[in-house]
Amino acid sequence: MATIISEDFLLHNGPARELYHQYAKDQPIIDYHCHLPPDELAEDIRFENLTHIWLKGDHYKWRAMRANGIDEKYITGSESDEKKFNKWAETVPNTIRNPLFHWTHLELKRYFGIDEYLNEDSAGSIYERCNEQLHSPEFSARQIPVKMNVRVICTIDDPTDALEFHKKLRSEKYEVDVRPTFRPDNALRIDETAFFRDYMEKLGDCSDIDIRSVDDLIKALKNRIDYFHSIGCRLSDHGLNYLYSVDFEDREVKASFSKALDGKGIDPEAAEQYKSMVLYELGKMYHAKGWTQQFHLGALRNNNTRLLNTLGTDSGVDSIGDFRHAENLSGYFDRLDKEDALAKTILYNLNPADNEVLATMIGNYQDGKIAGKMQFGSGWWFLDQKEGMEKQINALSNLGLISQFVGMVTDSRSFLSYPRHEYFRRILCNMFGRDVESGELPNDLDWIGKIIQNICFHNAKKYFGFE
Amino acid sequence: MATIISEDFLLHNGPARELYHQYAKDQPIIDYHCHLPPDELAEDIRFENLTHIWLKGDHYKWRAMRANGIDEKYITGSESDEKKFNKWAETVPNTIRNPLFHWTHLELKRYFGIDEYLNEDSAGSIYERCNEQLHSPEFSARQIPVKMNVRVICTIDDPTDALEFHKKLRSEKYEVDVRPTFRPDNALRIDETAFFRDYMEKLGDCSDIDIRSVDDLIKALKNRIDYFHSIGCRLSDHGLNYLYSVDFEDREVKASFSKALDGKGIDPEAAEQYKSMVLYELGKMYHAKGWTQQFHLGALRNNNTRLLNTLGTDSGVDSIGDFRHAENLSGYFDRLDKEDALAKTILYNLNPADNEVLATMIGNYQDGKIAGKMQFGSGWWFLDQKEGMEKQINALSNLGLISQFVGMVTDSRSFLSYPRHEYFRRILCNMFGRDVESGELPNDLDWIGKIIQNICFHNAKKYFGFE
Amino acid sequence: MATIISEDFLLHNGPARELYHQYAKDQPIIDYHCHLPPDELAEDIRFENLTHIWLKGDHYKWRAMRANGIDEKYITGSESDEKKFNKWAETVPNTIRNPLFHWTHLELKRYFGIDEYLNEDSAGSIYERCNEQLHSPEFSARQIPVKMNVRVICTIDDPTDALEFHKKLRSEKYEVDVRPTFRPDNALRIDETAFFRDYMEKLGDCSDIDIRSVDDLIKALKNRIDYFHSIGCRLSDHGLNYLYSVDFEDREVKASFSKALDGKGIDPEAAEQYKSMVLYELGKMYHAKGWTQQFHLGALRNNNTRLLNTLGTDSGVDSIGDFRHAENLSGYFDRLDKEDALAKTILYNLNPADNEVLATMIGNYQDGKIAGKMQFGSGWWFLDQKEGMEKQINALSNLGLISQFVGMVTDSRSFLSYPRHEYFRRILCNMFGRDVESGELPNDLDWIGKIIQNICFHNAKKYFGFE
Repeated sequence: MATIISEDFLLHNGPARELYHQYAKDQPIIDYHCHLPPDELAEDIRFENLTHIWLKGDHYKWRAMRANGIDEKYITGSESDEKKFNKWAETVPNTIRNPLFHWTHLELKRYFGIDEYLNEDSAGSIYERCNEQLHSPEFSARQIPVKMNVRVICTIDDPTDALEFHKKLRSEKYEVDVRPTFRPDNALRIDETAFFRDYMEKLGDCSDIDIRSVDDLIKALKNRIDYFHSIGCRLSDHGLNYLYSVDFEDREVKASFSKALDGKGIDPEAAEQYKSMVLYELGKMYHAKGWTQQFHLGALRNNNTRLLNTLGTDSGVDSIGDFRHAENLSGYFDRLDKEDALAKTILYNLNPADNEVLATMIGNYQDGKIAGKMQFGSGWWFLDQKEGMEKQINALSNLGLISQFVGMVTDSRSFLSYPRHEYFRRILCNMFGRDVESGELPNDLDWIGKIIQNICFHNAKKYFGFE
Repeated sequence: MATIISEDFLLHNGPARELYHQYAKDQPIIDYHCHLPPDELAEDIRFENLTHIWLKGDHYKWRAMRANGIDEKYITGSESDEKKFNKWAETVPNTIRNPLFHWTHLELKRYFGIDEYLNEDSAGSIYERCNEQLHSPEFSARQIPVKMNVRVICTIDDPTDALEFHKKLRSEKYEVDVRPTFRPDNALRIDETAFFRDYMEKLGDCSDIDIRSVDDLIKALKNRIDYFHSIGCRLSDHGLNYLYSVDFEDREVKASFSKALDGKGIDPEAAEQYKSMVLYELGKMYHAKGWTQQFHLGALRNNNTRLLNTLGTDSGVDSIGDFRHAENLSGYFDRLDKEDALAKTILYNLNPADNEVLATMIGNYQDGKIAGKMQFGSGWWFLDQKEGMEKQINALSNLGLISQFVGMVTDSRSFLSYPRHEYFRRILCNMFGRDVESGELPNDLDWIGKIIQNICFHNAKKYFGFE
Repeated sequence: MATIISEDFLLHNGPARELYHQYAKDQPIIDYHCHLPPDELAEDIRFENLTHIWLKGDHYKWRAMRANGIDEKYITGSESDEKKFNKWAETVPNTIRNPLFHWTHLELKRYFGIDEYLNEDSAGSIYERCNEQLHSPEFSARQIPVKMNVRVICTIDDPTDALEFHKKLRSEKYEVDVRPTFRPDNALRIDETAFFRDYMEKLGDCSDIDIRSVDDLIKALKNRIDYFHSIGCRLSDHGLNYLYSVDFEDREVKASFSKALDGKGIDPEAAEQYKSMVLYELGKMYHAKGWTQQFHLGALRNNNTRLLNTLGTDSGVDSIGDFRHAENLSGYFDRLDKEDALAKTILYNLNPADNEVLATMIGNYQDGKIAGKMQFGSGWWFLDQKEGMEKQINALSNLGLISQFVGMVTDSRSFLSYPRHEYFRRILCNMFGRDVESGELPNDLDWIGKIIQNICFHNAKKYFGFE
């Protein structure tokens, strides 16, 4: 039996089908935010088996397996790759209505040409057929993005990273434009004293600055931003509970910084002042470089100490927080806007209850100098599914200009996640098509189709200015 | 004219109709959370008239009548039962689009075979016909659940309850398995000093422990949990603004407890420490017993002092709060999980804006030992309507595994509320059916139908382990 | 090519079309909340050109233009009216899926008979044709509402306003009943000392009371309420972050007030006590007069200091806040209800995540003396669009009685906004019609149509008691 992944999957009306097939489908992909490992690209690795490329590190699947009653040894534990795969296959039929069900079969079909449901019965045969294909050259880390029509990949990198892999990829003229993203979350962790001292030392080393004060830190970050820029970086990214923007006193921040370097604890208010100051200084530097700054807001991380201690971060024990955002966002953006130092910005929220706050907040800082300067980012993480995307698209449409949206990202650690762009495009076309069909949008597919193409590709191309 | 309660009510597509009629409809009901009075069951009471069984204590209807401009004397006041019924009948046509409109006609049809709209004109005739039927033996308190295909009823009981009615029902081998639920909300009310002292005395009496310290209290609660367990209790329940889980100092909690017993006021921080400690200790005891703990979170209660003073609690003056939940939930669950002492848990929220927080929070503590160990509970109270249920089902589907969901509860004080299970099942089948029809789910009704049956009955049967 | 504004625009099913055309369309409009300038009505002004009547002061359009990359000089700056219009026309095709796209073409068609899309190409011709019509007598400020079937207009006025224009309109027997609304926001601004002193002086002058204490202030407000009442005012309005209702000490409020008059700063807690007290005293006065009080809650205003400083308030730099409302609302309403002094009330929220909190909060204070005494107001500002309205209508339906809803307002500064009532009515009929078609509402269009007419006109007529 063929699966539901048909030609017109998710396209529930005529205009949607035309929009997708004639306008959206063939647009190249600019994946401006993902977690692909640059070393695997640089070394052009091969994948031993389907478990290796598909299950390792995929905390979405881990959560589903745990909820389905699968023992941890089959998820992150010591069992064999094949047994792990079988347990995943056994879970898939129960992922019905979860995006994993759609992603799974979309990925099996697009990468491996497999048009069967994965379950206990089909597991053995599918594992075998996929593994065979994985051993062919077209399944190397570099070949997969090429095959998927990817033009740009922006990875996520710590300021202390030497970016050796990015340099290698550039020097070897890899067809896909792979760029680093500057993500200095670690530089904000002043409340974790032991970590912080080590990190400051590491950052000092790689920037050749002896970091003894917060001024030194800013210089070191500036140094790394310059370096990242020279290797093609044009975006920064921050993962934060909320955007720290309290009023801060230079004197107090300096004192806190010294305390932290001396290994003393910092109280939460002082830490928040420090974070607010550093984010402000970074914001100015991003603006000076013409970069785009991204903020991923509202995850509540590491809720399960037991699994955190055994597996580390990103183990599927993060969830959606209920932080308050509006005043913090306003404080940060206004401070920079007043000095004409507000960079292009993309805001992502994890709690869909905040959609309208963010979608209207960006409107306060659109300055008419670049179309869509302030962006409300695509459905992220838990929201990267049909309903989540629809809500983001509707909020942005109703409260801003969807026409200027820079579109989808995979945000994934996996080389098999590129069909999420297809998934997004089908959903996008379905929504616009439905509006055309019901007479809420003009029945003029040249007009609408061009907007679709802009959202899929051209807006991002223009916005980020990758030369 | 027949009403809208047709064979295919709420079933808007072919697969939905097949799923409902072939798979869902005939499943028995496990009503694991309701407010039915065990004394009325034990004494197998008869109902004098329709007002008695339908309007008394039903604060949903009271709120609708007040909003419709009906004087309180016809709602909770001194007017005759018939006049009260007439005022309700007059209100019904204005409840259009409120769940009351559907519930009303569903209940008239399923219990009394009445297929007419209730309004001012039909009121007299309907009142008469229903009253006549109510006097027949098949409308006794015990017969109604039997007729509605109910297998299990879990009532809600205070720890000080002697459970005499439950014992009577067991000894008389009533066909329906009626079990108590342990709901110790009163033991947390340390901030209401006069009440608290009396309650501690009462609890001490029934557990034969002289409660002079918080340790004594824990022993007394343990004693009652053992007793409840011996009478068949397998669930606990808590109604809380949010889940209290601040850090607490044993010494401080002890001091607060003594103060309270001495009749002195407790400050809010101290009260929160006390509540956090007692909830933690209870959580460990529930886990030790293999129970399921339920948390009903986020109601803002007793907002109208005038009606509270005249009518008492549960008078229709409660509403939806906007408390913050994420960090409190994480604090509580992680503390217990670290000690491997986290019981099976069902979380219910009253504010739908929190759906995604709860639906992802449970994923952090799924431990693979029992499928669906952590549950996101069905649409509760104000959310127990089509849109509320659809949002809960979608949130759980998108962010967890709907396949492992233990399904619906009536949460009702009324013997006439069983059709809410039918209502839920129709909505559930309609959603799955729509996805099948649109090609977003496989057109394989054996597969999907089995999941539907699991959600309606088998998951709950397996999960709670009622022997 | 004709636009999408057809006869059956937004009416996607048979019952919807019948409900709209037979029941809703011809109902008169009671616009009980708008920002129309009474001077322009009194002086019966003419509009120079389309930019003047359509773009000036319209911060919705400004935000869209900024997001589309239009320079500020074409928005609020020094460029000519025609150039500004052209830049707006250039933006319109990119407003697809934003309410501006629908509003724009609805307004062009209803006022000017233009059935073409506005864009760069059509801009010149449309500008010319509209300007020509604007110069005809039927486009005077007074004639427009008459033509649009408006019966009542309630403007928004500061307590210090002499209401000369309202008096002129009354004395000249203008066909539309134009009434002031009492909006004393300025009297709460105790935390802006310089402004506050001036304002108290102004308020003292117009009420002939030398305001030296908070008691004097209450007397002055009472004086103005009496005066407003004498000119036909029957509503008040407040724009607040949230409803201030902390416990206050008379003594402390008095002290704060003296401090403020002496030009000294007030700390936030003291300011909140002051605001809570004044709102409470106002609430009692509104009740005594039989007025309806309105609260517009949850905007986060003036987020962009740069534009605020150049353009002033209401420049399109406000957005949706995430304040907590439930306990504040309960505190305010309960305090008044206890004294039997709670006026008819309409609550509007800006963050749709609060819909359910508000829609259930009103139920706590329905007192059965007047149907729908407590109202959950129509989709406001950013929520005044299809999805926003649908969410408000659904929340009110599911959690209260939509049948008793007093319906839509334009909330607009523009004479061209009356089609927003049509927009609302089409959406309303479409929702009820869909439910009829799917069998979730009775197929009895007399019954449903009457409810539609009540929501469009009769409920408001009865509720406000404009004599």
